[in-house]
Amino acid sequence: MSSAISPLAPTHVPDMPAIAGVRMATAEAGIRYKGRTDVLLALFDPGTTVAGVFTTSKCPSAPVEWCRANLKSGKARALVVNSGNANAFTGKTGRAATKLTADIAAKTIGCKPNEIFLASTGVIGEPLDATKFAPVMQSLANSVSGTFFHEAASAIMTTDTFPKVATATARIGKAKVTICGIAKGAGMIAPDMATMLSFVFTDAAISAPALQGLLKEGVGSTFNAVTIDGDTSTSDTLMMFATGQAKGCPKIARAADPQLKAFKKALHDVLADLAEQVARDGEGARKLIEIVVEGAVSDKSARKIAMSIANSPLVKTAIAGEDANWGRVVMAVGKAGEPANRDKLSIWFGGIRVAHKGARDPGYDEAKVSAEMKKPEIFLKVALGMGKGRDRVLTCDLTKEYVAINGDYRS
Amino acid sequence: MSSAISPLAPTHVPDMPAIAGVRMATAEAGIRYKGRTDVLLALFDPGTTVAGVFTTSKCPSAPVEWCRANLKSGKARALVVNSGNANAFTGKTGRAATKLTADIAAKTIGCKPNEIFLASTGVIGEPLDATKFAPVMQSLANSVSGTFFHEAASAIMTTDTFPKVATATARIGKAKVTICGIAKGAGMIAPDMATMLSFVFTDAAISAPALQGLLKEGVGSTFNAVTIDGDTSTSDTLMMFATGQAKGCPKIARAADPQLKAFKKALHDVLADLAEQVARDGEGARKLIEIVVEGAVSDKSARKIAMSIANSPLVKTAIAGEDANWGRVVMAVGKAGEPANRDKLSIWFGGIRVAHKGARDPGYDEAKVSAEMKKPEIFLKVALGMGKGRDRVLTCDLTKEYVAINGDYRS
Repeated sequence: MSSAISPLAPTHVPDMPAIAGVRMATAEAGIRYKGRTDVLLALFDPGTTVAGVFTTSKCPSAPVEWCRANLKSGKARALVVNSGNANAFTGKTGRAATKLTADIAAKTIGCKPNEIFLASTGVIGEPLDATKFAPVMQSLANSVSGTFFHEAASAIMTTDTFPKVATATARIGKAKVTICGIAKGAGMIAPDMATMLSFVFTDAAISAPALQGLLKEGVGSTFNAVTIDGDTSTSDTLMMFATGQAKGCPKIARAADPQLKAFKKALHDVLADLAEQVARDGEGARKLIEIVVEGAVSDKSARKIAMSIANSPLVKTAIAGEDANWGRVVMAVGKAGEPANRDKLSIWFGGIRVAHKGARDPGYDEAKVSAEMKKPEIFLKVALGMGKGRDRVLTCDLTKEYVAINGDYRS
Repeated sequence: MSSAISPLAPTHVPDMPAIAGVRMATAEAGIRYKGRTDVLLALFDPGTTVAGVFTTSKCPSAPVEWCRANLKSGKARALVVNSGNANAFTGKTGRAATKLTADIAAKTIGCKPNEIFLASTGVIGEPLDATKFAPVMQSLANSVSGTFFHEAASAIMTTDTFPKVATATARIGKAKVTICGIAKGAGMIAPDMATMLSFVFTDAAISAPALQGLLKEGVGSTFNAVTIDGDTSTSDTLMMFATGQAKGCPKIARAADPQLKAFKKALHDVLADLAEQVARDGEGARKLIEIVVEGAVSDKSARKIAMSIANSPLVKTAIAGEDANWGRVVMAVGKAGEPANRDKLSIWFGGIRVAHKGARDPGYDEAKVSAEMKKPEIFLKVALGMGKGRDRVLTCDLTKEYVAINGDYRS
């Protein structure tokens, strides 16, 4: 595991206000790690609604299957998250472990097991010993607190080098509502879903179906627009919980309700902030790379091309080497399989046009571009000249540290 | 550039017999490299037929477009290949450079420019100065020799650490025919096409359309089943030239001609051998990885899943770290998007079953598997239990050396 904090970590960490109806605690259950917290319990007051989007993997983890099955009721009383073991590809044992974890939590809290939501992150294929949750669950439930987001974000880390939190406020009608979110990365990150785990909490009063609609809409340009290595976790989970305790908040039934306009923006800001932090903490990352593709035949086509660039090992290693190797960008555009015309293609690094209409830009000054490449944040733009489709994705560079982290992770 | 020869290089290098009607020479044109050959001229006797398959990139190089346009006649008198510059994304200058190269060669040899075939490999986006070919073309044409395949394979190398040659013989009717091939890799290798450059020569008498059919058929399980990093070159080229000078060889008009049975096998052997050498010389490769997927719903589905595994940075880094991290194989199966059922999935490393029916194999001995992982050749098998689809692909591990090679390549 990486020990040094990513050089791309945010310099400012926000204060995270309490959300009425949400309390949290963390503990050391000794799942895998020693001397650090590895389990998070979040308790929700009765009336809390829930929504979730999950990995598109055909081999999802047991907790993902558990959450999917229990989302139907739309009600949540608790969330239990552990790090160190993903409880994925663990067969019947894995299903039994989710049931046991939910039973332990439900009994402690006094609710139904299907009101407990679960997430696990860490090694795949090792059985999760859920009996380890039993000794800590009561003390967790006894010690919950409302201002605990930083600690919560730390407890769910695996190869992350810093905890990820974000917050925003908005008005729904005249009521002020708050959104707080936490997330963890930091490898095996690819779209649909692009995070391993993220949990968002609000005191707004929003029905479960409306919450689901908001989450699906919010994830497209945020978590689904981030990739570290193109690999998709079996455990990717983004869940949102709404307690409805914000004073005077009108009850919202539909995601299309016009009263949600400001809330949608605030939710987007929180999700975008967390997603960017995931990219900033990509395994071994030394450069944050923002890729904008415009002039594609559609937004969807722009997304595919942007992801082809973002996932290209040759583009990512070139940027790690601070080399403005735009030829590899051409390669990545070409291999995306989307409509593109070499002779209309232009490419910018850090705002400097390096290629124009199918060839090197006549005014291309390599020294200036080299200076851009030394910065920790690299802006890469591609104009296709085909149509009006546009998209933006975030990624990071591919470094020797990525290889080291992932070659040594399990051993 | 890497200097040490790949530890996976073949220990045996075959003698390469001359092909009647093919003569070659190499020279130092100083395109990019100093103190090494960087241009290859192959001359073909009149009557030689030609076929080619090329990159699927939407941004192909100028030489690829040149070859595609000139394949129609089916006739070839010469092949000019340079390393050091790909003449890709070079706009009008690039097209002019291909025309100039062909004109210089045609004038020297005394044939039409459209009987000259071209390939370039190296940096993308830098103009290729084709005038550099003029001073060396006449001496190249004067010095051609029939037993020159090793030197030819060396002249087309870029980051390759060893020249790649392969040969086989077959009977067509009563005639003995010979096939000789050369190839170069070694990064930006992905299927459709999986090689950057490969050229195959035979003295069989096969029409251009039949040759095209043979090449398309032969590439599927060979070059298209190899991936280094999932990146597709703008220059991928596989061409085949048939001189028809083998004594007593019947003239073959159709690829479906039953007389071609042995020839097809021999061609497959040559292409498979060259493709494996490309994988063995993957940039920074320390492990050759053979991936077999069986029990998929179709062969095509098996290919997609095998490629998802082969291109997963997390699988490749784990193998670089000699870690039998089969959980990441599950991840890669899951992200492929193809029909799979976690609870029917089994995985083997080096013939040892590590996972069975959706969970760790009860008899899984990590020490034994660890010993397998220390070998230079890793055999990885996945059984899906869904149907009868099967496929096999080759790749290599992802090492710190890959990052170093590709971070420093252009600078």
